[in-house]
Amino acid sequence: MSIDLRHDDDVLDVVAKTETFVRDYVLPIEDEAAGDITAAGGDDLRREMNAKAKDAGIFGPHAPVEFGGLGLNMCDRAPVFEAAGYSTFGPIALHIGAPDEGNVHMLAHIASEEQRQKYLAPLAAGDVRSAFAMTEPAPGAGSDPNALRTEAVRVDGGWKINGDKHFITGAEGAGFFIIMARTSGAPGDRGGATMFLAPADTPGLTVGRHINTIDKAMIGGHCEVSFTDVFVPDEDILGEVNEGYRYAQVRLGPARMTHVMRWLGSARRCQDVAVDYVSRREGFGGRLGDLGMIQQLVADNEIDLAATRALLLKACHELDLGNHASDETSIAKTFAAEAYSRVADRSIQMCGGLGVSADLPLARLSQELRPFRIYDGPSEVHRWAIARRAVGRAKKAQQALEAKASAGAR
Amino acid sequence: MSIDLRHDDDVLDVVAKTETFVRDYVLPIEDEAAGDITAAGGDDLRREMNAKAKDAGIFGPHAPVEFGGLGLNMCDRAPVFEAAGYSTFGPIALHIGAPDEGNVHMLAHIASEEQRQKYLAPLAAGDVRSAFAMTEPAPGAGSDPNALRTEAVRVDGGWKINGDKHFITGAEGAGFFIIMARTSGAPGDRGGATMFLAPADTPGLTVGRHINTIDKAMIGGHCEVSFTDVFVPDEDILGEVNEGYRYAQVRLGPARMTHVMRWLGSARRCQDVAVDYVSRREGFGGRLGDLGMIQQLVADNEIDLAATRALLLKACHELDLGNHASDETSIAKTFAAEAYSRVADRSIQMCGGLGVSADLPLARLSQELRPFRIYDGPSEVHRWAIARRAVGRAKKAQQALEAKASAGAR
Amino acid sequence: MSIDLRHDDDVLDVVAKTETFVRDYVLPIEDEAAGDITAAGGDDLRREMNAKAKDAGIFGPHAPVEFGGLGLNMCDRAPVFEAAGYSTFGPIALHIGAPDEGNVHMLAHIASEEQRQKYLAPLAAGDVRSAFAMTEPAPGAGSDPNALRTEAVRVDGGWKINGDKHFITGAEGAGFFIIMARTSGAPGDRGGATMFLAPADTPGLTVGRHINTIDKAMIGGHCEVSFTDVFVPDEDILGEVNEGYRYAQVRLGPARMTHVMRWLGSARRCQDVAVDYVSRREGFGGRLGDLGMIQQLVADNEIDLAATRALLLKACHELDLGNHASDETSIAKTFAAEAYSRVADRSIQMCGGLGVSADLPLARLSQELRPFRIYDGPSEVHRWAIARRAVGRAKKAQQALEAKASAGAR
Amino acid sequence: MSIDLRHDDDVLDVVAKTETFVRDYVLPIEDEAAGDITAAGGDDLRREMNAKAKDAGIFGPHAPVEFGGLGLNMCDRAPVFEAAGYSTFGPIALHIGAPDEGNVHMLAHIASEEQRQKYLAPLAAGDVRSAFAMTEPAPGAGSDPNALRTEAVRVDGGWKINGDKHFITGAEGAGFFIIMARTSGAPGDRGGATMFLAPADTPGLTVGRHINTIDKAMIGGHCEVSFTDVFVPDEDILGEVNEGYRYAQVRLGPARMTHVMRWLGSARRCQDVAVDYVSRREGFGGRLGDLGMIQQLVADNEIDLAATRALLLKACHELDLGNHASDETSIAKTFAAEAYSRVADRSIQMCGGLGVSADLPLARLSQELRPFRIYDGPSEVHRWAIARRAVGRAKKAQQALEAKASAGAR
Repeated sequence: MSIDLRHDDDVLDVVAKTETFVRDYVLPIEDEAAGDITAAGGDDLRREMNAKAKDAGIFGPHAPVEFGGLGLNMCDRAPVFEAAGYSTFGPIALHIGAPDEGNVHMLAHIASEEQRQKYLAPLAAGDVRSAFAMTEPAPGAGSDPNALRTEAVRVDGGWKINGDKHFITGAEGAGFFIIMARTSGAPGDRGGATMFLAPADTPGLTVGRHINTIDKAMIGGHCEVSFTDVFVPDEDILGEVNEGYRYAQVRLGPARMTHVMRWLGSARRCQDVAVDYVSRREGFGGRLGDLGMIQQLVADNEIDLAATRALLLKACHELDLGNHASDETSIAKTFAAEAYSRVADRSIQMCGGLGVSADLPLARLSQELRPFRIYDGPSEVHRWAIARRAVGRAKKAQQALEAKASAGAR
Repeated sequence: MSIDLRHDDDVLDVVAKTETFVRDYVLPIEDEAAGDITAAGGDDLRREMNAKAKDAGIFGPHAPVEFGGLGLNMCDRAPVFEAAGYSTFGPIALHIGAPDEGNVHMLAHIASEEQRQKYLAPLAAGDVRSAFAMTEPAPGAGSDPNALRTEAVRVDGGWKINGDKHFITGAEGAGFFIIMARTSGAPGDRGGATMFLAPADTPGLTVGRHINTIDKAMIGGHCEVSFTDVFVPDEDILGEVNEGYRYAQVRLGPARMTHVMRWLGSARRCQDVAVDYVSRREGFGGRLGDLGMIQQLVADNEIDLAATRALLLKACHELDLGNHASDETSIAKTFAAEAYSRVADRSIQMCGGLGVSADLPLARLSQELRPFRIYDGPSEVHRWAIARRAVGRAKKAQQALEAKASAGAR
Repeated sequence: MSIDLRHDDDVLDVVAKTETFVRDYVLPIEDEAAGDITAAGGDDLRREMNAKAKDAGIFGPHAPVEFGGLGLNMCDRAPVFEAAGYSTFGPIALHIGAPDEGNVHMLAHIASEEQRQKYLAPLAAGDVRSAFAMTEPAPGAGSDPNALRTEAVRVDGGWKINGDKHFITGAEGAGFFIIMARTSGAPGDRGGATMFLAPADTPGLTVGRHINTIDKAMIGGHCEVSFTDVFVPDEDILGEVNEGYRYAQVRLGPARMTHVMRWLGSARRCQDVAVDYVSRREGFGGRLGDLGMIQQLVADNEIDLAATRALLLKACHELDLGNHASDETSIAKTFAAEAYSRVADRSIQMCGGLGVSADLPLARLSQELRPFRIYDGPSEVHRWAIARRAVGRAKKAQQALEAKASAGAR
Repeated sequence: MSIDLRHDDDVLDVVAKTETFVRDYVLPIEDEAAGDITAAGGDDLRREMNAKAKDAGIFGPHAPVEFGGLGLNMCDRAPVFEAAGYSTFGPIALHIGAPDEGNVHMLAHIASEEQRQKYLAPLAAGDVRSAFAMTEPAPGAGSDPNALRTEAVRVDGGWKINGDKHFITGAEGAGFFIIMARTSGAPGDRGGATMFLAPADTPGLTVGRHINTIDKAMIGGHCEVSFTDVFVPDEDILGEVNEGYRYAQVRLGPARMTHVMRWLGSARRCQDVAVDYVSRREGFGGRLGDLGMIQQLVADNEIDLAATRALLLKACHELDLGNHASDETSIAKTFAAEAYSRVADRSIQMCGGLGVSADLPLARLSQELRPFRIYDGPSEVHRWAIARRAVGRAKKAQQALEAKASAGAR
């Protein structure tokens, strides 16, 4: 049998350890903080949890081994990240939250040797956090990356950057930023973008207000960030000039999938809480969990979770094979994000009044999960891309047939 | 033409006044309070808004004219309540929020002359608020009213009540309570329940903690309430002993519909905010509101709002004709509650990152609307009731056919 | 009480008579024909049923009284057409099927006195059938009417028409045609269209093949029709030259609603058949109709039917008031068409293997109902129109606010 | 990398050959027959196609190598069966249609050596077809297998069977039957069932009428079958007495999955036809395939197909590992069956009027796919089973926690 969907024992061991760690250590911390998790616990708590995760042998499962990580590929990250995501504090504890995890991934692929020592090493170790500054307020680069307005102009020995960003996750308290700026073309055409590395204390780099979103679990929040004549020397260009869009793709596919992994844990927790509830609670002459309409909710959650997990594995496998996997990651991301909202919503419904109260974590988790249908590309943008590719394939098939027919006619 | 779906001009005048009042006076108050509306503004603000509503001639549109209200029937309440519900503070301002509005309705139908003066008059005037104490924690009366455990036992000159309630809306600060307690039978059988009136300062009546639900706009919160040897004299029995379930029906049908009315305003506001956004914002080479997938969201919201309004009118008309309208109110309530969640969710999606932030009211309104699929009977319970009636009708039709056939055979 | 949703007693009497007529006379005919209803019974059967309907006093409920009809307005047509639509042969029997019913409606509004005698009188009496020739094969006028390619050019004493139509309902056997042809502008711009009346035996008018659609209940089928130098004299122009699009609107709104009415009957029949089944059939330790998942299907059907009926009444009322009601009819049509597919599908599911067999009429009715999401404007086109209007209203509101603000600033 | 989702090259070779075979040879046959495929082409055509498939080296991909098949496991069958299912005649051509394919699978697992020669060999070679007689008319074994009423009683040298079956696929023309009959207990309790092998010409075995279902592509139809004192000698008992339910499970899991495989081909064909259409057709100022609402339909189909394929692979892998995979096969079956209806329906919608006509194969394929939500266990029964297992797991987890807590307390 060539096809094999089973993880190796050492991966399963990391999964098991992560499950134990989350259940025994992280969930109690989250429960305590649940009343006020705006700051997602803050960096002191993060460092404390990171140390515990290192002790448990599960810190940085995705990071290169040379930088202290476990070096797991995408397929093997999936169950570990899911186990961590069972608590919204789990990814912080394992240092696999967004955007650090994706930044580690990208730096490991693209950074120069100097940049690896200067930026990747402390990031992988959890000594600092990082931010990825790409999204801009209207009329800049939101869902449509071509609208990029932040601009870098050539100056002596480097580049000078000006522009505004928002929804920059983890900006508050980040040690350094990866900045996406236009280096050719004009907003609206594609043109070229470049990625720049800049320490947080670079003059002209300002972190503004936290945008008060309904998800609260990302350390450092979602912030507004502005760049006023920010100077970046040539050695801190990440990769090549004008190749920023291509690198963004390197980051985006895997980053989408690790979002899917982490939030899969949260969605499963919703289902666990709800099924636990309906299997205990009585009403209408029996156990709630034996009523047909409740069974339908339970089953639909199982189906949604299973389908997400299956699509995720497929996309991860394509990425591990070195493919772009644009279609597979778009499909998995879109399905997952919508499935998570459905799962959380059904779980709330199963628990009635308690479901919409803070006595259970469901309403809070539902809030954490909702934005995923918007973050990392709204479902509409992914569907547009999926459809364009499908229509493009049909067009190509037609042209091939016509070419064959006209060749035959000659 | 006998069929007429148009409101009289004097009703339309109240609607127009309410719209102006909400837009110019109430919404600015809500916006200011939005950061912290846990207390829904509190009773001082309520009294201030009530005075303004009286000045505007729109206070108590549902209350009997003899008690200072406008005396509108259910059909005519609908557009007024919708206009008020456009702000979550609007129903408080017009004194038509739950549970006061439903309690006024019920007292106007059932209360004795003494009770009307003692309880209804100050309630209708907005001098006091009230609470309706029916729902109990597990294993008591939640979705299944037959599980009622709070018990009233006959004592000299009245009744002594013991039991625990939860999710009692408006309990904190209420002037009096309507208490549903078992007066015959045992939990699990139907038996008989009775409604009792009790001032808030009655010894043994204790308002406990606020349940921290995701909806925040109900003044007085959703509280736990306990009764320890609460004495109610005979003259404060509401209606007849053992008729409580029947009276609850009197209250429940209309109360469901006024929920539908108020929240219809909030749902429409979501759509207004979102359509305003997509008609301004550019992206993907044009206006967002001209993109097909966005148009689908816009149109589906329009359809949901129109269908809700149409079902609501039908149910109100049946109630105005003096019918129980169990089917019509269940159908309108179930459809509306689900439609509102869809409308709020689509509106959020249309606005992208802003949609999940506090920069727009959508995420907050979505939280206000979600519990309606659970409050006043979960969708599952209503569907169960709707289906039972449909199957019952089929059974009766079969029996009629069989009776006819057997009569023909003789 | 000004608002009234009740039909007058004489209308309810027509409804009751129609129900009896359909149950006792029409359904047995349909059942017999069910194995082969491609021809929808044919014109001989139609005339026989028409005569019976006349005897029953229910023929032509929509037709002007002066032409032998009952002259019911849109609101009052609704329950009568629904009762007729309970059998797919019912509308043929009452002579209220598409396209005749809509053609009677339009001729009654637009035709000249001569045309009323020549075309409307025999049509209203059921002596002839008619067809409305508007839809064209690609790249002509399909969902997008501006693409109209059939062209009429001015000749001495009249017009000469050339072009191809398809999906022309009732064409086979029709006594005359109403032809929509371009009389100014070019395909792709709006330009002007004109409606022409032409007897079926006009030289150059050819009825081609029946398109083999999944719905079979329309007498005369859906046909291809071609016009080759078809001459129409000036007196057979319907209304004014270049006003065809406007007249089409006169026809389309009501015609959409009468489709909704008729197929509402078929959808209700699906539900009746399924509820009857689940209220008899045992399984899993009880009656199927008492299982929660079945109850959900039953209840969702009830909700869909009720919402359709409520939206339909609203749209009909607007039409009766003389309004265009573009929004109301688009919303009711779109909701209804999708609801009918859901209702039929759930009904099939409730009946298991029998549901997908010809032992019950469900699979067949499901096929009759499916095309309604495409006929008379696909759901997508209606949603596009609904959204455009909503966005347009938002734009206007913004401009009004800006105008007010700039006026205030001066 | 341990996880691998890639098929070996020799499997991909069979897939490619099957695609070519279906496109070049089978589809033209289907197209020709499409007007009248009630008999699914009949056995003469089947034998002709079987011979061609043998020539192409793709006959019996699932059958044991010793019996002339390719011996593919479940994972590897998936893409081959999907490629075959692209035409409704493809599975017949490769001899992998229901119920033969599942019967081969079961006989290969359970049959005695004599039975393998007598029944399996000719079946695997395509010399005969077979039927699996399990489903009974009400009040017998439909969705609920415990209701089994067909009874086998011990007689000298064997068993005598009496009872009625319906929906017996392929019965007309089958060479032999596998009969499920009760051998202990009474209808309603589980008791014991036994499987019997019986040649079609066994006295007392009668194939009755074809049930006229909306799917037409199964050779031999869905028939009523009755057994009147049918004698089966001991050597034709399949496996052990009273173990029939257990064997049925052996058959059911894989048989569900091969249904998913075959119909996945048909669903993909729907999408291919529709995407080809919208990528050619113009309207509304552009290509239909570039309109947002159409893109949403295209993308949702892609997502549904991808999720089905991913769930299918997971379930197949579990079966290949020798697990029961009740959950995985129920989930994959339920999701797939509903996804196929959605895919077919969206494809029809994309093609407008043509979609509901016989000019495209979509309406016909939609009819073929619809019954899958009922056949092989209605979605409701699978959901019930999925939910019961989920609630059962929760219950077990609670008991484990309680046991641990009480152990800790001691």
